[in-house]
Amino acid sequence: MRILGIDPGIAIVGFGFIDKQGSKCTPVQYGCIETKAHTPEEDRLLYVYEGMVQLIEKYKPDAVALEKLFFNRNVTTAMSVGQARGVLVLAAVQKGLPVAEYTPMQVKQAIVGYGKAEKRQVQEMTRMFLKLKAIPKPDDVADALAVAICHAHSYTLNSKLNEVLRS
Amino acid sequence: MRILGIDPGIAIVGFGFIDKQGSKCTPVQYGCIETKAHTPEEDRLLYVYEGMVQLIEKYKPDAVALEKLFFNRNVTTAMSVGQARGVLVLAAVQKGLPVAEYTPMQVKQAIVGYGKAEKRQVQEMTRMFLKLKAIPKPDDVADALAVAICHAHSYTLNSKLNEVLRS
Repeated sequence: MRILGIDPGIAIVGFGFIDKQGSKCTPVQYGCIETKAHTPEEDRLLYVYEGMVQLIEKYKPDAVALEKLFFNRNVTTAMSVGQARGVLVLAAVQKGLPVAEYTPMQVKQAIVGYGKAEKRQVQEMTRMFLKLKAIPKPDDVADALAVAICHAHSYTLNSKLNEVLRS
Repeated sequence: MRILGIDPGIAIVGFGFIDKQGSKCTPVQYGCIETKAHTPEEDRLLYVYEGMVQLIEKYKPDAVALEKLFFNRNVTTAMSVGQARGVLVLAAVQKGLPVAEYTPMQVKQAIVGYGKAEKRQVQEMTRMFLKLKAIPKPDDVADALAVAICHAHSYTLNSKLNEVLRS
């Protein structure tokens, strides 16, 4: 199964497609959609949306995973990221894709095995897990791959749990 | 010119189409798109987006106006409203419509002539201005009409200003 992980934002949207076969994950494509500052917000939203639609059509994922965002910072930032997140989720749901959400703690737990792991540890484990030479840059790309792996793990766990429950 | 005012939200999206002829505004259609609680967020976003696309295609506005939201409350609410706002702005910009934003203070100033007016005053003036028998319910609908009128006013002012500057 192919999983698309997304790290939403209005300036940079990180994305990572990975293929999950059994307990192995291999990277398919990853990168980011960037929008120009000083561009009207509505144009940036359209750009982000259209970019994601193109990626989904090209790489045909089976599921989408996003990080559930919590902000203790600026409410204006939350609103702005929320808008971008809205059009990204829309792009996925319009294609009939299931959308899963994970808290940062769930992602850390899945990748490092410890919910309070450092960002750097998560990135390094993501790199190793996908057998990449370097940690993808910017952080948004590494974060997108991490949430995709998190979904792959929890998908495996849920499948095993269902098997046990059924047997 | 026809203006669509929108009050964004995930549970209720208020909308109001008004026709502006000279300094007069007449209501065309108004109401709200409602989504069910306990429904997956992504389905609610899709529903809101598709509802707005249908309304825009049916009533063919020339411009869209939204309230610029400020939250001193919950950041989670800001994120959620932001997502809805994102898909609503997308619906407008995909049709090539200009999107204008007004702060609550600008709306109050335009409708009542006083930036710190009470919500009730704004609603009553909106009702009178559009010659409606009663204040539209829920509040989201009245708010959507108010921001549409605000846009009509500022459009008139800007046109007059341009005339003066050109003469």
